[in-house]
Amino acid sequence: MLTEIMSSIFGRFFCVSTFGESHGQAMGCVIDGCPPGINISTELIAKDLQRRRPGQSRLTSNRKETDEFQILSGVFEGKTLGTPISILIPNSDARSKDYRPFKNVYRPSHADFTYDAKYGHRDWRGGGRASARETVARVAAGAIAKQVLKQLHQIQILAWVDSVGPFNAEIDPTTITHESIESSMVRCPSPDDSQKFIEHIELVRRKKDSTGGIIRGYCTGIPAGLGSPVFDKMEAELAKAMLSIPAAKGFEIGSGFSGTRRLGSEHNDQFVKDGSVIKTLSNHSGGIQGGISNGMPIDFRVAFKPVATIFKSQTTVDSSGNETNIAPKGRHDPCVVPRAVPIVEAGAALVLCDQLLAQNAIDWSH
Amino acid sequence: MLTEIMSSIFGRFFCVSTFGESHGQAMGCVIDGCPPGINISTELIAKDLQRRRPGQSRLTSNRKETDEFQILSGVFEGKTLGTPISILIPNSDARSKDYRPFKNVYRPSHADFTYDAKYGHRDWRGGGRASARETVARVAAGAIAKQVLKQLHQIQILAWVDSVGPFNAEIDPTTITHESIESSMVRCPSPDDSQKFIEHIELVRRKKDSTGGIIRGYCTGIPAGLGSPVFDKMEAELAKAMLSIPAAKGFEIGSGFSGTRRLGSEHNDQFVKDGSVIKTLSNHSGGIQGGISNGMPIDFRVAFKPVATIFKSQTTVDSSGNETNIAPKGRHDPCVVPRAVPIVEAGAALVLCDQLLAQNAIDWSH
Amino acid sequence: MLTEIMSSIFGRFFCVSTFGESHGQAMGCVIDGCPPGINISTELIAKDLQRRRPGQSRLTSNRKETDEFQILSGVFEGKTLGTPISILIPNSDARSKDYRPFKNVYRPSHADFTYDAKYGHRDWRGGGRASARETVARVAAGAIAKQVLKQLHQIQILAWVDSVGPFNAEIDPTTITHESIESSMVRCPSPDDSQKFIEHIELVRRKKDSTGGIIRGYCTGIPAGLGSPVFDKMEAELAKAMLSIPAAKGFEIGSGFSGTRRLGSEHNDQFVKDGSVIKTLSNHSGGIQGGISNGMPIDFRVAFKPVATIFKSQTTVDSSGNETNIAPKGRHDPCVVPRAVPIVEAGAALVLCDQLLAQNAIDWSH
Amino acid sequence: MLTEIMSSIFGRFFCVSTFGESHGQAMGCVIDGCPPGINISTELIAKDLQRRRPGQSRLTSNRKETDEFQILSGVFEGKTLGTPISILIPNSDARSKDYRPFKNVYRPSHADFTYDAKYGHRDWRGGGRASARETVARVAAGAIAKQVLKQLHQIQILAWVDSVGPFNAEIDPTTITHESIESSMVRCPSPDDSQKFIEHIELVRRKKDSTGGIIRGYCTGIPAGLGSPVFDKMEAELAKAMLSIPAAKGFEIGSGFSGTRRLGSEHNDQFVKDGSVIKTLSNHSGGIQGGISNGMPIDFRVAFKPVATIFKSQTTVDSSGNETNIAPKGRHDPCVVPRAVPIVEAGAALVLCDQLLAQNAIDWSH
Repeated sequence: MLTEIMSSIFGRFFCVSTFGESHGQAMGCVIDGCPPGINISTELIAKDLQRRRPGQSRLTSNRKETDEFQILSGVFEGKTLGTPISILIPNSDARSKDYRPFKNVYRPSHADFTYDAKYGHRDWRGGGRASARETVARVAAGAIAKQVLKQLHQIQILAWVDSVGPFNAEIDPTTITHESIESSMVRCPSPDDSQKFIEHIELVRRKKDSTGGIIRGYCTGIPAGLGSPVFDKMEAELAKAMLSIPAAKGFEIGSGFSGTRRLGSEHNDQFVKDGSVIKTLSNHSGGIQGGISNGMPIDFRVAFKPVATIFKSQTTVDSSGNETNIAPKGRHDPCVVPRAVPIVEAGAALVLCDQLLAQNAIDWSH
Repeated sequence: MLTEIMSSIFGRFFCVSTFGESHGQAMGCVIDGCPPGINISTELIAKDLQRRRPGQSRLTSNRKETDEFQILSGVFEGKTLGTPISILIPNSDARSKDYRPFKNVYRPSHADFTYDAKYGHRDWRGGGRASARETVARVAAGAIAKQVLKQLHQIQILAWVDSVGPFNAEIDPTTITHESIESSMVRCPSPDDSQKFIEHIELVRRKKDSTGGIIRGYCTGIPAGLGSPVFDKMEAELAKAMLSIPAAKGFEIGSGFSGTRRLGSEHNDQFVKDGSVIKTLSNHSGGIQGGISNGMPIDFRVAFKPVATIFKSQTTVDSSGNETNIAPKGRHDPCVVPRAVPIVEAGAALVLCDQLLAQNAIDWSH
Repeated sequence: MLTEIMSSIFGRFFCVSTFGESHGQAMGCVIDGCPPGINISTELIAKDLQRRRPGQSRLTSNRKETDEFQILSGVFEGKTLGTPISILIPNSDARSKDYRPFKNVYRPSHADFTYDAKYGHRDWRGGGRASARETVARVAAGAIAKQVLKQLHQIQILAWVDSVGPFNAEIDPTTITHESIESSMVRCPSPDDSQKFIEHIELVRRKKDSTGGIIRGYCTGIPAGLGSPVFDKMEAELAKAMLSIPAAKGFEIGSGFSGTRRLGSEHNDQFVKDGSVIKTLSNHSGGIQGGISNGMPIDFRVAFKPVATIFKSQTTVDSSGNETNIAPKGRHDPCVVPRAVPIVEAGAALVLCDQLLAQNAIDWSH
Repeated sequence: MLTEIMSSIFGRFFCVSTFGESHGQAMGCVIDGCPPGINISTELIAKDLQRRRPGQSRLTSNRKETDEFQILSGVFEGKTLGTPISILIPNSDARSKDYRPFKNVYRPSHADFTYDAKYGHRDWRGGGRASARETVARVAAGAIAKQVLKQLHQIQILAWVDSVGPFNAEIDPTTITHESIESSMVRCPSPDDSQKFIEHIELVRRKKDSTGGIIRGYCTGIPAGLGSPVFDKMEAELAKAMLSIPAAKGFEIGSGFSGTRRLGSEHNDQFVKDGSVIKTLSNHSGGIQGGISNGMPIDFRVAFKPVATIFKSQTTVDSSGNETNIAPKGRHDPCVVPRAVPIVEAGAALVLCDQLLAQNAIDWSH
């Protein structure tokens, strides 16, 4: 049996520590390093939790978490103190009995087997710590990070569903607003593509199956000069944040995988002066060069696999290695991407807030 | 102007600190946390440096770095001491004058502009710290990490070129050896695909242009139970390591982006018992579930953009914002992927070594 | 205004994140990195909280915190899971109105001024985050750490009051038990010295004044080979842990300050073989040599200043710089050391647990 | 056998990684996080190395290290780049044969035994990594840190010898200059006390014995608001830095151990307004309250034990546990404090530079 350090802590400046098992008493987080004097709107936190919440539409799991939360510290008279902010989100609608029959069964493409291999003692109820319920805490922390980014730098983070199964949306990112995303049940701002996505998700659900999809993230208002060269490049930190989301299998920045097929002469982003600002004509770089933001929008995509829990019968083994069948009941989404949109936004907000706070007070121009 | 912390330090256990500008005196690294008693072969380090070296074939830059290195500390009587290992690699064939004309010019899709935005004071010679010459230090550190992985766990790391420009190789990873990779000038173990790749690279070079490509990494001998849930998932750490390589634009683990198009019933990896070992029939998970290794090979891909330096004339601006033209001379590769193979291997070795050492001595089975 | 990173996080393996303001809703901590499979006794946590609690004797503040706590995650069926353990301790008897008159006054030798200088926005109620109430969270975390140390290695941590004001105890540490310490109202295991300490504390209280004191820590059962050379030496980590306790002003290990007056020939600890074990005849090293434990008891002392809050009138300034007088009411201890004993123990437990888990699983003897 | 993480890395912002064994090829450091645009005087580095160097006076070891150094990266055209600064200091006068007879002997109060217990494989030549030769790298890094502190904030760090053996100096810190310290062979700015110290050191040397002493550190020009509450308090970081120096056994800030004997009414530092600045009349706090600087001088003391190597014969055991005698030859100081003065300064400089850079660029006053 093995153990690990700091696996539930993210960030070095805006440092978020999360806790909670899916069917335990509560989920939550502690944010150490949030700057003082930020006005905190609890309504904005509630909104992001609502976007992540199961049961929000007919496409999602019908677990009934209200995700009511409490801020226990770090905010005084509506403003942050600079001290740790702790947020508590009780678990209220856990149905552990749904999981009891599979207590010793290794569900295919779940983390039951690997948690057993690593820790020996495992909370089998609802996936325990490996459940995507864990992400409720990062969405809460991300909602604080978004308020910091907005109040200090007018930085805005958007994400939307870019593909579901075999269907891809055609989207001009410069036209997208938070409202155009939220007007769609699948969080795709193009109504036509949105319709295709919904139909595909309903189809796979009827087949007791699941599907994957891709989310695009798009961050504007970023000053040039954020991020670090070498190992902590901004795209590297974003990649880590995204691949740490349950079910994420891929990340690309700017032109990504498709850019590999281009010629350098087509792919290079030409610098031009626009008023007093240096910018680039194209943005294949995705807003980052040499690990450092260049002031253009940060543009990335995240791939999510089909949900592992399906209601079809599957063959697997139990913890003694005996072959067995499993046909879960529980309450599960046939496609994770609509609910993962605020999780992707939260991840980007945590990275950008961390990078923003990594700036140093010294005016080097002396 | 801003600054940043620990941007040139990677890992928490097998902790590597790198230094050096492309045309400065030397590159190098310090490894803190390498276990004691590991036999160090300097020949294996030299081999990996040779694989990364410019001038190794007609496809690569003809800068003539011999990459001779010295181990200054941490190894005594051929074995590691457990104290920091420092490795020094002098720069010998820097031609800074090639860069003088572009000293104040922001080369397209390079990091000149962002370094200026961040630091103000910049070493313009050969790209300074932003040059891919930086990777020589991580290849040296990776060569130590590989020896730790081999001696402690028989873990092996392979990487090869999976695509160049529009051409993709068809490769069965279970048949690949280090030798079959190295027998190809482009480090693609399939001779037919290798030939197509070489032709494409030569074509773009003749056009004074460049192309991108994809590298596949494949790690075997991994025990189940390595890696951490939540933020430091093994795939998240790999994604960070890979996106920190210059020119990397994307990462995918297991089924990656293409897996998003599948149904869950096709995509799930079925557990079976094979002798005394639990394994999976397919490996769409890429060897990792819930952030923790499951004992199957770790299988990932990394996208590299076309090299930014091309010999065609391009329009850009200088540091005063004036429009200017640039047609670099210098010595550059038309395609980075053949030389990036040992860099990808090194990145994976650093992550796996870090995760391996994160295991704790306590026998939790008490 | 400035901010800081990770100021409320301690440890790299057994990583404790604490939160809470003195008169806010709750105090608490999250422990990331606790090994799985440890049996958790909530009673032992309650006992240590009780030892730290105000109102436990006539010598201490009569704030009435019951310090009831909840474990919200990380423990399942009585055993740790290896996932983050969160502990919540609500604040119940805060009397913020006692502090309102001094809201803008900088109390002498308190942190009101420095918090204002750093953060601008400050929770003035009961000292906010600067209150020693913060230590309730580390005592809770320490009580978990003690159980890890006991179950994995039979390591025991004791601390007791070694001096109060001008009075010093004469104590043979090898004779001390937890019970002999707890039988004294001031937590000094020598009844005669205990009596002198109590009389001195009562005297200064009658004078509306306060006094300081020294606590000695003594840890047994430590295996040789724990701790790190160079910057993270075990005594360095202990020094940091101790100086992070509110009111702590000094730390010494082994012979400490008095050892500076000796000759080397008197001070050196001679090695001898005792059965199969190598030990030393004297222990001026305090159980640590070159930053690494040598198997002898770890023996250290911590100096605590006189409590800053006294009921005598004092002159100071307010946040506008105007001179003013202050004669606090509130509820305060005339001497902090009796209640600080479990805090010192907790600090040592956190350091030792961190160092214990820093051991690596690999058997280097291969 | 065990291993440890990051034991040779100090700081989170101004992050210093050191390497080197006493009789290996070289000592050195890499500084990651130094701000760009700082003018670097190599002369100031050379001066501090000279102050630490053996052979500088008749009181010190006559090992003949010239401590010539090279800056390999991070400085361009005389100014820092913001990239890692690496400094190399070759070992030139190692006499390993002096140590060969004691290769398997555990010297009393040295780290031979504990390194063997921890690592198994040990460089016995000159104490290897446990030698105080290691501190040459932190003095070099500290000399860079001092230049950052001076150029950005006019912060000055002084240290001097405050006691040797049983003799204590009487010193008014406000009168001390770098020159008054350096004019004394023992680095005590009071000529009378200096004379007593020299006589005592010469006496113990004639007796083939050694003595300890105390160094006082004094830092001025510190702005109010540096440092962190809770675990990373400025005094806690200083304590860690000081206790990580070889032979250090104690640390106190402000009134320290002697303050424990005072009444609160005597000990409290009264705030007053002095022009536009809030300061305190006394400085028992040592310039820090609640972990945060208050703008008064930071005032601390560090205890050093008598040097463990003495030329008298001593009894000990070898690695097989056999009793043996040892009477080292080698070249050693009878008292470490005169040469430890620049090491203490370097430690304080590293802490203050780290804390200074921890300040955040955001203007919270919005």
